Amino acid sequence: MRVCAHFKDTSGGNGVGRMKKIRVSVLGVSGYTAREALKILARHDGVEIAQLVSRSEPSPHVTQFHPELAGLVDKRCRTFDARSVAAESDVVLSCLPHKTSFEYCGKLLDAGCRVVDLSADYRFQDQETYKHWYGVEHGDLEHLAEAVYGLPEINRDRIREARLVANPGCYPTAVTLAALPLVAKGMARRSIPLIAVAASGVSGAGRKIIEQFMFCSVHENVYAYKVGAHQHAPEMAATLSEVRGGRVEVLFTPYLVPMDRGILATVHVPLKDAPKNLTEHYTEFYRGEPFVRVLPPGEWPQTKYVWGTNVCAIGVTRVGDYAVAVSAIDNLIKGASGQAVHNLNIMFGLNETAGLK
Amino acid sequence: MRVCAHFKDTSGGNGVGRMKKIRVSVLGVSGYTAREALKILARHDGVEIAQLVSRSEPSPHVTQFHPELAGLVDKRCRTFDARSVAAESDVVLSCLPHKTSFEYCGKLLDAGCRVVDLSADYRFQDQETYKHWYGVEHGDLEHLAEAVYGLPEINRDRIREARLVANPGCYPTAVTLAALPLVAKGMARRSIPLIAVAASGVSGAGRKIIEQFMFCSVHENVYAYKVGAHQHAPEMAATLSEVRGGRVEVLFTPYLVPMDRGILATVHVPLKDAPKNLTEHYTEFYRGEPFVRVLPPGEWPQTKYVWGTNVCAIGVTRVGDYAVAVSAIDNLIKGASGQAVHNLNIMFGLNETAGLK
Amino acid sequence: MRVCAHFKDTSGGNGVGRMKKIRVSVLGVSGYTAREALKILARHDGVEIAQLVSRSEPSPHVTQFHPELAGLVDKRCRTFDARSVAAESDVVLSCLPHKTSFEYCGKLLDAGCRVVDLSADYRFQDQETYKHWYGVEHGDLEHLAEAVYGLPEINRDRIREARLVANPGCYPTAVTLAALPLVAKGMARRSIPLIAVAASGVSGAGRKIIEQFMFCSVHENVYAYKVGAHQHAPEMAATLSEVRGGRVEVLFTPYLVPMDRGILATVHVPLKDAPKNLTEHYTEFYRGEPFVRVLPPGEWPQTKYVWGTNVCAIGVTRVGDYAVAVSAIDNLIKGASGQAVHNLNIMFGLNETAGLK
Amino acid sequence: MRVCAHFKDTSGGNGVGRMKKIRVSVLGVSGYTAREALKILARHDGVEIAQLVSRSEPSPHVTQFHPELAGLVDKRCRTFDARSVAAESDVVLSCLPHKTSFEYCGKLLDAGCRVVDLSADYRFQDQETYKHWYGVEHGDLEHLAEAVYGLPEINRDRIREARLVANPGCYPTAVTLAALPLVAKGMARRSIPLIAVAASGVSGAGRKIIEQFMFCSVHENVYAYKVGAHQHAPEMAATLSEVRGGRVEVLFTPYLVPMDRGILATVHVPLKDAPKNLTEHYTEFYRGEPFVRVLPPGEWPQTKYVWGTNVCAIGVTRVGDYAVAVSAIDNLIKGASGQAVHNLNIMFGLNETAGLK
Repeated sequence: MRVCAHFKDTSGGNGVGRMKKIRVSVLGVSGYTAREALKILARHDGVEIAQLVSRSEPSPHVTQFHPELAGLVDKRCRTFDARSVAAESDVVLSCLPHKTSFEYCGKLLDAGCRVVDLSADYRFQDQETYKHWYGVEHGDLEHLAEAVYGLPEINRDRIREARLVANPGCYPTAVTLAALPLVAKGMARRSIPLIAVAASGVSGAGRKIIEQFMFCSVHENVYAYKVGAHQHAPEMAATLSEVRGGRVEVLFTPYLVPMDRGILATVHVPLKDAPKNLTEHYTEFYRGEPFVRVLPPGEWPQTKYVWGTNVCAIGVTRVGDYAVAVSAIDNLIKGASGQAVHNLNIMFGLNETAGLK
Repeated sequence: MRVCAHFKDTSGGNGVGRMKKIRVSVLGVSGYTAREALKILARHDGVEIAQLVSRSEPSPHVTQFHPELAGLVDKRCRTFDARSVAAESDVVLSCLPHKTSFEYCGKLLDAGCRVVDLSADYRFQDQETYKHWYGVEHGDLEHLAEAVYGLPEINRDRIREARLVANPGCYPTAVTLAALPLVAKGMARRSIPLIAVAASGVSGAGRKIIEQFMFCSVHENVYAYKVGAHQHAPEMAATLSEVRGGRVEVLFTPYLVPMDRGILATVHVPLKDAPKNLTEHYTEFYRGEPFVRVLPPGEWPQTKYVWGTNVCAIGVTRVGDYAVAVSAIDNLIKGASGQAVHNLNIMFGLNETAGLK
Repeated sequence: MRVCAHFKDTSGGNGVGRMKKIRVSVLGVSGYTAREALKILARHDGVEIAQLVSRSEPSPHVTQFHPELAGLVDKRCRTFDARSVAAESDVVLSCLPHKTSFEYCGKLLDAGCRVVDLSADYRFQDQETYKHWYGVEHGDLEHLAEAVYGLPEINRDRIREARLVANPGCYPTAVTLAALPLVAKGMARRSIPLIAVAASGVSGAGRKIIEQFMFCSVHENVYAYKVGAHQHAPEMAATLSEVRGGRVEVLFTPYLVPMDRGILATVHVPLKDAPKNLTEHYTEFYRGEPFVRVLPPGEWPQTKYVWGTNVCAIGVTRVGDYAVAVSAIDNLIKGASGQAVHNLNIMFGLNETAGLK
Repeated sequence: MRVCAHFKDTSGGNGVGRMKKIRVSVLGVSGYTAREALKILARHDGVEIAQLVSRSEPSPHVTQFHPELAGLVDKRCRTFDARSVAAESDVVLSCLPHKTSFEYCGKLLDAGCRVVDLSADYRFQDQETYKHWYGVEHGDLEHLAEAVYGLPEINRDRIREARLVANPGCYPTAVTLAALPLVAKGMARRSIPLIAVAASGVSGAGRKIIEQFMFCSVHENVYAYKVGAHQHAPEMAATLSEVRGGRVEVLFTPYLVPMDRGILATVHVPLKDAPKNLTEHYTEFYRGEPFVRVLPPGEWPQTKYVWGTNVCAIGVTRVGDYAVAVSAIDNLIKGASGQAVHNLNIMFGLNETAGLK
């Protein structure tokens, strides 16, 4: 097995041009998360784009999928060959859909490559939970156990050493970060569930061509879906339970709203033993985190202000015995590709904000 | 003196042209709720539009405020004269803003006119609550006590006899109707609050020309505001508490979403002694209501499907010990002007759906 | 051949309930134009909805296609049987796509029914033009010659007697009405083309589920398509040439803009012998037309103000040797279903505005 | 006195941090063009942001105007002091509105600073044209004559030496670049006007808080305005006339469409002596231009694909005796702040694409 060693930055300054660039390949090029990953990687001084791999035939140019990459990324896609990818890459971002991604990631790991998987395939350590929510047996149990859940605000140290990082879902990123400072410190009652509602732009659903995402279906419309039954709810619960060291329930309802990008999540946390000043607590909790911004009391995040950034903005207040925390992210950046690059930066000892400013 | 008698329909058929039409005046013509009220009234066989009253000078034509009314309503506005309005009207819809409306409604009542007030001014029987949330002393205590809260699904009989109807707020209409079948039947725990989140289109804020409602501020953006502190929360709590016969708490957070019209509300109701099949219970509860539609299990309302209608569509499911009910209305129709006309129909013994099909 | 006689209104007043209602069937129920036609017909006092015919199996309820029709139209679709349709209908609106519609319309005519065809199939008297632009041989030459182009502002008298009305395209309606007062009166130079640009909402393309009409493709985007090569350009040219009595060229470019409904068209007409005051000329030309509104000088139409109406609003000015006329319509109403009902009203001697106020 | 010399890079490597950075101040910080300029400058390796100057009191932090700059630009605004600005800056971008900007730019020039003015104040050499279209006497005739029109594709050499660059308007950038390859080469007939129609997002109007730019006014709406009478039409005509060496007329109509950013312009050019293959001609004409992309035949630009970039994408075809050219830009980047930075790069001998990739 080949170990993708850290390339230690010894240059001082930002080290541009002094260190060997990390070679990154991208699997599953046609979707929105791949597009955003490529935009970030193309402007990232510490990496170079290696292979683009698509299952489409015959090897389309990347701009056929994403005309907006013209002038930024000039590569044709290739078909998948695990050995070839591993030979030319230090790490692979898999932007394949869940239930497909595990077929590829295992082979890449075996071929000696590190992997950040943006699908849901490695997010649950419990294969039964996976099977229940995604409807299939997990196809890569061999590597599942070593997967690290890639929320840097929780798992930074484990991400550093990981071969396989499971990049979090978009809703779980927004909801978990909004609740974390209370749950992690034992300030949330566990006898009643956290109640979360999140509004998402349409790109969160990926590039599916179905009637419910047509312009005339979405425009001037809002609707809830999978009420209390979305596959991201158990992901939130699993993460918060692990952090808490005990079962945490999350009752979650997503809304589709007529915008392209952005998630606004509201989490109601029933409190016990919480400090008076929740904003202060959150600010302290997230001190030093490069991509979490806690807003002053009375200010609330807007998805517009984090659009295109890797930032999660959070406002919080107390209402009676509840904390109400509101978080905003760009679902394609902090909720997907930006967080993936953040993980990659951590994995390879790069500046955490490289490519993400 | 009160004159506004029912004009009995003795014609058979739908009676068009046979009965004396109800004369309706509109106060505060410039805003969105007046525009929608006029669209409905202009097509309503049982009424005729009497005076349009505006505080603007000098007496603009209604189409200067609302070009889309060209060909539908052809009247100039007039300045307010309580006696003149009362002489020419059976009922007045006040579309004035709160804190202003009570200055006019009292005079109209004294002059012998019935009134439907679309502002918040008569929604709270408790003047202290009003003062707390709206920041001023109530200016018409003389008539406050007789005001009937105009949610027909609760107060139909009292509306019929009322001189003064306080038309509900848009959020309270959506949230209250979603929770009502459980709260009214004692199936909601009262030790913890109902938790409600509602997304609203921009027209819900009225026709205010401020930066936060500019196109570039709203488009591709979602934000929460007045988190846990919106003036509609006590209105929901007051209504549900009265129905329940005991204090009901509501924790409420509104979202602004990039659309013109529509509210989607989600209410989480902690249950006790509730039936297994919540959909059946809701369906039974609202049987016969012309403007509430309960959706089959697994279907969820979309604001698009009630756009421009007076319908409140509701879906409900049970998740653990909670009911999650989702309701959709058009904030300008069921949430304002349509409900006002519904109230008017009830007050004058007209077919409840007249003008609202 | 059965002649769908006029049912003469002898009742005085609006005659509701006095005259036999026109029985209208709709073919091709699943699309947007059928949805809008049904909304209009359901509120039209002079008609009753007979059969709904869909090629989908097995006979879905109309609300499965259009949930917003719940409470308005309560019918299942049926499969096509020309004799059955003709027996139960006085007239059929065909909302089938072009290249399909002619297969059905001919049979209905032969079975004794009058037809308003909303597709492009009968708009060109010249079958070669049809073949060139639509790519197939015309499949119903037998009835093509008797088809009347259903722009009431031009062909009112012929529509009255027609068995088969070819309802105009949405772009041609907007562009033709904007240019008509000049072309019809010989005030347009013919040596250089009229130049037209029109922006359309997405519903103009019908209910096609393809990537270019996905929310994320259309939102925050504008693009031109079929530049100088749109199949509606020859339709405009044919109509204007016939009116003019000589070849008129139209250079046409359509834009797709991020809205659901509406067309805004700008037509540049090179002038000769035109009067000074173009607004006056347009006003005079359209005097008495119930659905054309000419705006005062300096005012320009907005699609919002004709949204949901059958009105075409037009503003016009002179710039140098050109007239610039701007028109706005709702593409689904005046550009499709509303105009179809207008034609139906004319064909059966009903009040022209019935159902369209 | 003019100092703004090149600061020679003597450091080796890619030069970052090796050369003295160009110090850039920004005047008029509150608007959209300043926001976009600051986003670009903050990521531009060759410049540093010097003073931010606002007329607002008392010296707000830049994030009070633009919350999305949090983490990117951390400066308070200052009040205007020409000497102080000049002492600390090599160049100033004036984002002040027209009719105001000339009051400031003259003083800065006199104090020894180079200036890129994003307003219209220095775009017309002819002060009478300025007065006619902007309604005031020009207030800085002293410097008007030396101003260079900052369209790099025309004036690159003059920009390099200029002290004062008049950055082009957004519509003129899109329209001029679409017509330029034909007009510059004498392939456009001059006896009849070029006819241009352009659709613009709302940000093109600046950050004005007026009813016509409210969400509910713009959403689901398109309208034309200033038909044949927009102040950008003479700017297009002046530029094209100068390039052509003879009077060129432009008949121009702008549309407002419901999006934030983007312009799509269509220009109809009457041809004489033009080559068969217009795409080839355009491609050749713009060869080497870093920010113009000519599309293959049959492809048409979309504003989405140039969103956030400094690119002008152009498609062109021949229809009869006309060329129809369609161009797309981001009105805030290529149509304003990006082009300003491009000009700045040229003025100071930096890589033309620095900060604009």
